[in-house]
Amino acid sequence: MFHALADLNRAAPADFCAAVGDTFELAPWVAEAVVGQRPFASVTALHEAMMGAVRAAPRDRQLAFVCGHPDLAGKAARAGALTAESRHEQASVGLDTLSEEEFARFHRLNDAYKQKFGFPFIVCVRRHTRDSILNQFERRLRHDAATEFATALQEIAFITRLRIAAKVTGEGMPRVDGRLSTHVLDTHAGRPAMGVAIELYEFTGDRAHRIATAATNADGRTDAPLIGGRPLPIGRYELRFAIGDHFRSRGIEQGDPPFLDIVPLRFSIAEPEGHYHVPLLCTPWSYSTYRGS
Amino acid sequence: MFHALADLNRAAPADFCAAVGDTFELAPWVAEAVVGQRPFASVTALHEAMMGAVRAAPRDRQLAFVCGHPDLAGKAARAGALTAESRHEQASVGLDTLSEEEFARFHRLNDAYKQKFGFPFIVCVRRHTRDSILNQFERRLRHDAATEFATALQEIAFITRLRIAAKVTGEGMPRVDGRLSTHVLDTHAGRPAMGVAIELYEFTGDRAHRIATAATNADGRTDAPLIGGRPLPIGRYELRFAIGDHFRSRGIEQGDPPFLDIVPLRFSIAEPEGHYHVPLLCTPWSYSTYRGS
Amino acid sequence: MFHALADLNRAAPADFCAAVGDTFELAPWVAEAVVGQRPFASVTALHEAMMGAVRAAPRDRQLAFVCGHPDLAGKAARAGALTAESRHEQASVGLDTLSEEEFARFHRLNDAYKQKFGFPFIVCVRRHTRDSILNQFERRLRHDAATEFATALQEIAFITRLRIAAKVTGEGMPRVDGRLSTHVLDTHAGRPAMGVAIELYEFTGDRAHRIATAATNADGRTDAPLIGGRPLPIGRYELRFAIGDHFRSRGIEQGDPPFLDIVPLRFSIAEPEGHYHVPLLCTPWSYSTYRGS
Amino acid sequence: MFHALADLNRAAPADFCAAVGDTFELAPWVAEAVVGQRPFASVTALHEAMMGAVRAAPRDRQLAFVCGHPDLAGKAARAGALTAESRHEQASVGLDTLSEEEFARFHRLNDAYKQKFGFPFIVCVRRHTRDSILNQFERRLRHDAATEFATALQEIAFITRLRIAAKVTGEGMPRVDGRLSTHVLDTHAGRPAMGVAIELYEFTGDRAHRIATAATNADGRTDAPLIGGRPLPIGRYELRFAIGDHFRSRGIEQGDPPFLDIVPLRFSIAEPEGHYHVPLLCTPWSYSTYRGS
Repeated sequence: MFHALADLNRAAPADFCAAVGDTFELAPWVAEAVVGQRPFASVTALHEAMMGAVRAAPRDRQLAFVCGHPDLAGKAARAGALTAESRHEQASVGLDTLSEEEFARFHRLNDAYKQKFGFPFIVCVRRHTRDSILNQFERRLRHDAATEFATALQEIAFITRLRIAAKVTGEGMPRVDGRLSTHVLDTHAGRPAMGVAIELYEFTGDRAHRIATAATNADGRTDAPLIGGRPLPIGRYELRFAIGDHFRSRGIEQGDPPFLDIVPLRFSIAEPEGHYHVPLLCTPWSYSTYRGS
Repeated sequence: MFHALADLNRAAPADFCAAVGDTFELAPWVAEAVVGQRPFASVTALHEAMMGAVRAAPRDRQLAFVCGHPDLAGKAARAGALTAESRHEQASVGLDTLSEEEFARFHRLNDAYKQKFGFPFIVCVRRHTRDSILNQFERRLRHDAATEFATALQEIAFITRLRIAAKVTGEGMPRVDGRLSTHVLDTHAGRPAMGVAIELYEFTGDRAHRIATAATNADGRTDAPLIGGRPLPIGRYELRFAIGDHFRSRGIEQGDPPFLDIVPLRFSIAEPEGHYHVPLLCTPWSYSTYRGS
Repeated sequence: MFHALADLNRAAPADFCAAVGDTFELAPWVAEAVVGQRPFASVTALHEAMMGAVRAAPRDRQLAFVCGHPDLAGKAARAGALTAESRHEQASVGLDTLSEEEFARFHRLNDAYKQKFGFPFIVCVRRHTRDSILNQFERRLRHDAATEFATALQEIAFITRLRIAAKVTGEGMPRVDGRLSTHVLDTHAGRPAMGVAIELYEFTGDRAHRIATAATNADGRTDAPLIGGRPLPIGRYELRFAIGDHFRSRGIEQGDPPFLDIVPLRFSIAEPEGHYHVPLLCTPWSYSTYRGS
Repeated sequence: MFHALADLNRAAPADFCAAVGDTFELAPWVAEAVVGQRPFASVTALHEAMMGAVRAAPRDRQLAFVCGHPDLAGKAARAGALTAESRHEQASVGLDTLSEEEFARFHRLNDAYKQKFGFPFIVCVRRHTRDSILNQFERRLRHDAATEFATALQEIAFITRLRIAAKVTGEGMPRVDGRLSTHVLDTHAGRPAMGVAIELYEFTGDRAHRIATAATNADGRTDAPLIGGRPLPIGRYELRFAIGDHFRSRGIEQGDPPFLDIVPLRFSIAEPEGHYHVPLLCTPWSYSTYRGS
C-alpha cells in the first residue's frame, strides 16, 4: 500500500507509525523516534531521519535491532517464519529455492559469521545476485568487528531505503533504481540493426542462467531496459546477440559457418543504482563494445 | 617416413608405387596410373596427377574406390579394422571415443547416407571439428546423387593432399596448414598487454571444451600460434582473455567486481587453410575485435 | 509571418492566396490552382497539392515558371533585384559575398547551363554548402534535358517545402530539418568526457572554415545539436576534439607531445533531413567513430 | 666511410683517432681519451666510453667543448662555415632553408639562450621536426643552468650516437632508428584493404606538409615503413587514407558524397627510437585507430 508523503506528514502520530513502523525489521521504535521531526521535506529526508535514529541509538539497542534480522537462507526462511518483507526480498534472488548443498553452504557461512560477530549476516539482497551474496559473505567474514558492524548498518540503510521507496510516494524520492540498456549498430550498413535477438544471462559460479530476452527495434534499441525499475543486482552477466542471423537476413557474405554468429558480451555490474549502457557495434567481421552512457 | 620428391621422380616404378601407393584408400592403382608421368615438378603436381587419375577412371572403378572407404565412426573403427591412416585421422577429431549415444547417432546417419547414395560418407576429418562433421553429414544428406559424388571426390582430394604432404617433401608443397593467432593490445596504456592468460575453447553443440591455453609475451602475442602446422578444423570457437587480472596487476581502477574480467570472443573458422588473426584491443571499460591479417 | 493551417483552410480565397501566393517564385497561379482543394489535412498535403499544380501545368507554363527564377549568384543578386525569399536563401550559403573569381566561375556556369537547357540553374541552396552547389552545377550540366528539367522541379519542391514550413504551422508539418550531434566517451575512464572543446569545420575546396564551437556537458554531449533546426547542408565537414587537453586535465600519461591531441573526424553529409550522430570513443592511445543514431 | 669495429679495435692509435676523432664536434681529445680502453666489445660500448670521457672531463673543458657547437640555423650555417656533419644534420630538418622571418626567430632564440646560459643551444636535430625544435627551444629557455647543461650533454649523446652508428659497424650497434608503419583493414569485407592511397603530413605550426605517399599492398600494409632507417622526428603528423576510393572501387554504397572519403589520423611522435604502428580499421561508416605494435 502506498502512502503519500504529504499525508504522512500530517497524519496522527499513531497512523504515521502504523504506516512506516515495519520498515525497520521488528523495530517500530525507529518510526516512533522520528514522528516528532515531521514534516519531512522529501521521502529521502524521511529515510535519512529514520537511519539517523538507528545510528543515534545506544549500542545495545542497535545490537538487539541487528540481531532481530533473520538468517539469510536460514531455518526461519525454510520454516516460513519470516516477516513478509524479508520473505519477499529473499525470494527475489532465489534464496527460497536453494539446493540442499547450497542451503548447507549458507548454513555454514551463517554459523561462522554469527560465531565471529555475534549477529546475523545482513545484506540488501535486491542489490545482489546469488553469486555476489556468496562473495560478500566470504569477504565480510574477514572484516574486523567494527568494520563489519558499520557494514551491517549500511546494508540496513540500503534495505530500508528500498522499503521506504516502495511504500511512500512524494517529493525527493531516493534513487534506488538502476538501468541496463543496449544498442546494436550495424556499422557495415551504417545504421541501427533492427530485429536482432538478444539474450541476457546471469552467472552463478560457472553456470549462466538466461534472465531476459529481447529484440532490437528500428533504432537498434530494446523497447524497455533489459533491467530497470529496480536496483541492478551486483554480479556477472552476459549479453548474447544473434548477429549472424541479422547479416544473413540482409544477404551479406559472412563465411560458412559465419565468422560471427552469437556475439557474447560478458561484463559485471558493480553499481546497483547506476546506468549501464552496453552497446554492440558490429560488422560480419568485427565488433566492439564499451560502457556507454 | 618421408620421401624426397627428387628421389621419387627417379625411383624404380615399383619403389615409387610402394612409397605412395597407400595414399588413396585401398587403391594402389592410382599410383600405378601416374608412375609414367614422372618427373613431377612439384609435390602439388604429383597430388594433382593422382587426383586426375581418379577423376579419369571409369565410373564403376571410381565407385568401388569410394566404397572402399570405412564408415566414419563406424563398426570397423570400433573393431580396429581401419587402415593405419584412417585410424589416425578419425582419432584426431575424437571419433574413436564417442559415447554410446553419439555412436548411435553416427550409425543412424551412416545408414541413412549409404541407403540414399550407395557409398559411405567421406569427409576430410582433419579439416573439421566433431560439430562440423555432424553439420556436414546432415547437410550433405540433402544433396542429390551427382552433387554428393562430386563432394565425396573433393573430400578425397583434401584427405589425400594431406597424406601426400605428410609423406613427400620437395618443391611446391600443397598448402594444407592454417593458422590461428591473437594479439592483446592494452589501449588504456597504449602498448601490448603482456602476461594475459588466454584459453581457447572449441564448441560441440552447446558445450565448450578447452583445447589450448597460452599467455601473451612482451609483444602481446603468443609465442606459437594457438592452432598451427595443420588445417584449422572448421567449427565454432571461443577465446577467453583474463583481462581483469591484467588491469588488476597494473593497479587500474576497474570497478568491484571489474566491469570486464574474462572477455570471450566467439567466432567460427570456415577456411581450414586460412590465417585467422583474432586480436583483442581493450581497456577496463571497452574492447574490440576483428578478423585481422 | 506565421499562418495557422486551420485559418488558411477557412480563409477567403483571396486571403489564402495572399498568404501563400509568393511561395512559388513569381507564380501566384499555383496558390490559385489549389484554393478550391481546401481544406488540407496537413501542411505536407498543402505543399504537395501546390507541387501537383506545378506538375500538372502545361509545359510552356512550367517553363515560364522555371525561367522566372533568378540566376544563382547572378547579376540580379548583385544588383539587389531578387525577391526577398531568394535573397535570404542565397545569402545563407554565402553566395552574396563571393570573390570576383568565384563570381566569374558562377557566371560561366550559369551561362553554360542556360545555353544548354534554356532555363536558369535552380538548386535548394539551404540543403547545400557552397562546395556542394558547385559540384551539383558541374554534375547537372552533364544531364540530358529531360532529366535536368525533372531535377529542377525536384529542387523547386525542396525550396517551396522549406518556404511553406516557414510560413504555415499546423498538423503534418513536412520534415525539413536534420540534426548533427556528437558524444565523447572516455573509454580510458569508462565514462562520458566532460568539458571537451569541439570545433566544427565546413570544407570549401581544400579550405576548412570553422562554423561552430561547443564543449561537452556532463553526459559527454553538447547542449544543443552542432547543426539543427534546419536542413543539414550537403557537404564535407570536420569535427575536431581537444582530447589531449581532456586527458591532461585528468593527469593521465599520454606522451610528450601527447600521442593524440586534436582528433579530427572528417565526414560528409548527404541527407539534409537526416540525423547524423558522429561520436568519439577515445583513450590517450586510440579512438573510434561511426555514424550512429 | 664505414669502419669495422674489429678493425678499429686493433688499429694503430693514430688511425683510431683519425677514424672517430671528428665524432665529437671540434673535440678530437675525446677519441684520444678512450683509445687506451680498447678493445670495445660493441659499438654501443665505444660510444658510451666516449661520452664517459666527456662527462669525466673538467668543467672548463666540457664548457669549451659545448661552446664549440655552432648555432642552430645561425650565421655560421648561412655563411657555410659549419663542419660537414653539422651542415648535413641541420639541412635534414630544413634549417638551411628558413624564411627571413624564421631565421629572425631562431636568431632571437639563440641570442636569448646564449645570454642566459653562456653556451649555444644544442639539440639532436635528426630526432626532431622543425616544429619540435622551436618547442624545445622555448621550453629549455625556462630551465635552470644545471638542468640545461645536463640537457645539452644528453643531446650531444644523441648526436654522437647517430654519428658513431653511421661510421662504425659491428657487434652491439646502438639503437638509433625508429619506425612508423600502418595497416588498413577493411572490416566491411573482413580482409586487408589493398591499393589504398596514403599520404603522410608533418605539421609546422598550423600548416601540414606532405612528406610521404604510399599505397597499401595485398596485406593492407605499405611495402616500406612510412618512416624508417632513421630516428622518427618528434613532432605532429597526419596520415590521410583515401578510403572513399577504396569502397567505390568495391562498388559499396557509401552515400553521395560518401560519409567517409579521406580519413585523417592525427598523432604525435614522442619517442624517436620507437615503433609507431598506426593502423586504420574501417567500413564506409566507421573507423578506429590505435597505437599498435
